[in-house]
Amino acid sequence: MTISTSTTTTTSTPTSMPINNQLQPLVNELKELAHLNAVSALLDWDRATYMPNKSIDIRSEQMALIGRLVHEKHTGEKIRSLLSEHVDLNTGNIRTDKIDKKDKKDKKDKEDAGTTNYTEKEKRLLKETYRSWRIANGLPTEFVAELSKLLPKAMHVWEEAKEKKDFNLFAPYLEKIIDAKRKEADYIGWSKAPYDALLDQYEPGTTQDEISIVFEDLKKGTLELLNKIKASPNFGKENRLKNVTHTFDLNKQWDFGLKVLEAMGIDFNYLRQDKSAHPFSTSLHPTDVRITTRMCEKDFLESLTSTIHEGGHALYELGLPVEWYGTPLGEARSMGIHESQSRLFENIIGRGRSFWTHYYPILKSYFPKELVGVSVEDLYYAFNEIIISPVRLKADELTYNLHIIIRFEIEKLIINDSSVKVFDLPEIWNQKYQEYLGVTPKDHAEGILQDVHWSGGMMGYFPSYTLGNIYGLQFYKQATKELGNLNYKFEKGNLKELTGWLKEKIYQKGKEKSVPELLLEITGEKLNTRPLLDYLENKYKEIYNF
Amino acid sequence: MTISTSTTTTTSTPTSMPINNQLQPLVNELKELAHLNAVSALLDWDRATYMPNKSIDIRSEQMALIGRLVHEKHTGEKIRSLLSEHVDLNTGNIRTDKIDKKDKKDKKDKEDAGTTNYTEKEKRLLKETYRSWRIANGLPTEFVAELSKLLPKAMHVWEEAKEKKDFNLFAPYLEKIIDAKRKEADYIGWSKAPYDALLDQYEPGTTQDEISIVFEDLKKGTLELLNKIKASPNFGKENRLKNVTHTFDLNKQWDFGLKVLEAMGIDFNYLRQDKSAHPFSTSLHPTDVRITTRMCEKDFLESLTSTIHEGGHALYELGLPVEWYGTPLGEARSMGIHESQSRLFENIIGRGRSFWTHYYPILKSYFPKELVGVSVEDLYYAFNEIIISPVRLKADELTYNLHIIIRFEIEKLIINDSSVKVFDLPEIWNQKYQEYLGVTPKDHAEGILQDVHWSGGMMGYFPSYTLGNIYGLQFYKQATKELGNLNYKFEKGNLKELTGWLKEKIYQKGKEKSVPELLLEITGEKLNTRPLLDYLENKYKEIYNF
Repeated sequence: MTISTSTTTTTSTPTSMPINNQLQPLVNELKELAHLNAVSALLDWDRATYMPNKSIDIRSEQMALIGRLVHEKHTGEKIRSLLSEHVDLNTGNIRTDKIDKKDKKDKKDKEDAGTTNYTEKEKRLLKETYRSWRIANGLPTEFVAELSKLLPKAMHVWEEAKEKKDFNLFAPYLEKIIDAKRKEADYIGWSKAPYDALLDQYEPGTTQDEISIVFEDLKKGTLELLNKIKASPNFGKENRLKNVTHTFDLNKQWDFGLKVLEAMGIDFNYLRQDKSAHPFSTSLHPTDVRITTRMCEKDFLESLTSTIHEGGHALYELGLPVEWYGTPLGEARSMGIHESQSRLFENIIGRGRSFWTHYYPILKSYFPKELVGVSVEDLYYAFNEIIISPVRLKADELTYNLHIIIRFEIEKLIINDSSVKVFDLPEIWNQKYQEYLGVTPKDHAEGILQDVHWSGGMMGYFPSYTLGNIYGLQFYKQATKELGNLNYKFEKGNLKELTGWLKEKIYQKGKEKSVPELLLEITGEKLNTRPLLDYLENKYKEIYNF
Repeated sequence: MTISTSTTTTTSTPTSMPINNQLQPLVNELKELAHLNAVSALLDWDRATYMPNKSIDIRSEQMALIGRLVHEKHTGEKIRSLLSEHVDLNTGNIRTDKIDKKDKKDKKDKEDAGTTNYTEKEKRLLKETYRSWRIANGLPTEFVAELSKLLPKAMHVWEEAKEKKDFNLFAPYLEKIIDAKRKEADYIGWSKAPYDALLDQYEPGTTQDEISIVFEDLKKGTLELLNKIKASPNFGKENRLKNVTHTFDLNKQWDFGLKVLEAMGIDFNYLRQDKSAHPFSTSLHPTDVRITTRMCEKDFLESLTSTIHEGGHALYELGLPVEWYGTPLGEARSMGIHESQSRLFENIIGRGRSFWTHYYPILKSYFPKELVGVSVEDLYYAFNEIIISPVRLKADELTYNLHIIIRFEIEKLIINDSSVKVFDLPEIWNQKYQEYLGVTPKDHAEGILQDVHWSGGMMGYFPSYTLGNIYGLQFYKQATKELGNLNYKFEKGNLKELTGWLKEKIYQKGKEKSVPELLLEITGEKLNTRPLLDYLENKYKEIYNF
């Protein structure tokens, strides 16, 4: 372990916030909330990476306690009172009157009062702070504590159930989670459907009806494209990488992954990668971001794509404005925007021809013997072969969205319709796979038990992946307009120029804009599936020659 | 990563406490306090093992917040009021009157009232709970928050200062820490010397005067023995292990260390070992204990002895009664008793002839080429050679205690005498080394900067090491009486029988007894340097043939 500490050895906060002094007391409380959330993130990261096997029970209790402290603080008198100085807690409107009596005495101050006291950024900070405060206030403390106790345990049981391919083991936990999520929706409140309340936590302002329209459009386009591909004589052509009988040394895979992360613009003074059963990324602060990957000796694609994917998430977290840490202006905009970053790097770049033009010779230098007989063209095909699989994580870029659409449809069912029983879900799952993809999982491990999300209570998250694919192409199209031919840059190994653009346009903005505003500001457009469908059509037309 | 979850999948607390219902509300609060302390331990473990390099600033803030929450909870109205139901908070006496009004109405209950309501264990639980409550209440919240912000930063700076051999870098932090520790002593209160208040936190009930007497006695015995050794013709004889030019593969060293830990009775479902710059052990719960080691390719002695040492600490934490978790009855007795366990395993066992009779052939199977020409006798000598070094961690068992005595004398000075200046300390340090050991450090890295303790605010800890050596031999002598010839068992690789005895006699007792009571109960004796001095004399007489 090398030790390297900066020589500026102050114990004060590294950055100060460029705000109105009146907001400082509120912001201080929000920062403490952020610290507690960071502690939660560390407890969970440790659970997934290094925690001794059999200490899950006490870890659940620790996480429940921190979950309760977060909730108590968020809904406590201190934040309520500080927030109410700036926002009418009934309407969410920013106050135009001052409530501080001392200030009222002063005539000059009286004249200064009003919304003009706040900059646009501060107004957004207050609006978003109010929004999350309102949601937190909807949830009873006992409910939050119970849930944060249930989830780590549920995730551990899910891992076991998946290993044993035994849905019955997980079913009682899934039932409890569904029940809790329905309650959560009711606590938060909804107008058209309970599921909207859950979606809103990951993609604020979005409803299932809006998503349904976009997803229907995408489903139609995807199935049309899939039919053209299936009709191509190239469909199912030999994947030469699969013929490789060599194994790929895990240390070399690891090193190659780090090399790519570095090229993406990641600074390892602020990020670490570890191994876990299921890759994820988490952030404790823009100076402490963590990703995980899993590795397989027979197949370096999975580890590499997961490293690049989580690296995309990490770039967003590392690039958030540290001076606004703790406030919504220091937080990622939405999970859809988050996924747009991970998926842009994973798919558009990592599965792209120009990326491999640069990295193929480098990869060959890591695995000269192993890659004998595998050309850059073979590698490109291996990353882009259409794979109609029951497993989401094995899917290509095209069919991937069908996997998401299936989960979206099932989540709508289980949250909105209380007549649907947990034990019916495997059947519903398998039917949809047969209908959209024409495949049936051979067991529950590659069927309904495949994803970690539900065991973590993340219902409403899945649509973010496909929304991310859509946003990602819209951003990428605009970046190409502004930065010139990106493929040419990627061929030279220059990924950082795009990262810099994304940092300026997206990461540094935090929650300053709503998702539609951000999209409009950057691309001049609304949510639009066209760039994604065009990109997929161009890509696969060339590969499958239709 | 293999996943193995127990099939008993409840979310409830794993164990229930065998106590008086009246105590349950207090115990619940104490358990939450223990969870928060566990979170602190994880934050610090992560800082030392895996945290990205440059996130120390925000880590300090997170640790300060948790430190403050611990303190606020410990000194808050809830615990005060629950504790006062059982203990008179002014005198510390357990109440003989009931204060619950409802109970008072009932005549039968009235008759039951009085200390007879509490078992002996419960009385000790209350007395020890009161003791730590009283200490916590002495410390202002801001002081605690400042200190927990200062220390992680100070430790990081100390690491840099040690690497750069630059005392001036660390001096301002040391000054702040000394200042804080003097304040701490005053807040807690003391009668004869401020340093007593610090000692009391690690070795409750012990004073610097008592330690001084015992240490003088030990110093005298040690110097006499050292003179005999120095006069021996064997003094400075060839250490054949040092002639080995091979390096020792780190993975094999690691595996051998784990093998020994397992033989000691450690269950890796509840413990993990990692690497860190400075070996330490920490516990989140008896089901989640962590130790670290550092490794060197040229020398396996350091890594192995540190692994065994930390393993001894770990056994204590793993063996604490889980059903009393959160209360003093579930906590280790004192740091001296803790060190008695680590040092018993490290020295009496790990540097013992019978241990190596068993492990020498096993070590040779790990390093057949590397150990050519090194006999079991050579190895035994390598582990026990008298090394008069300025560095504590390089010292043999005999001179080690002189290193501790030097630190004890300096700590008394800097805490009790405010006229001593930080910049004078290196000189004082070097003078004492010259006086007791006849050596002078070549730089501050092997002088005053060598130890982590002061940077972590652990002033008053050092005496625990030597007290641990003294207790350790007293326990070991008794274990031999009760279990028969332990050397014979160690020769067969049986270390677990001793572990079982220690668990029953020490680990499972938590804080049920005071240190003198525990010593008396187990050995029938008071604190006594004789067994240690006899053991050292016998050991070195044989090696140095005097």
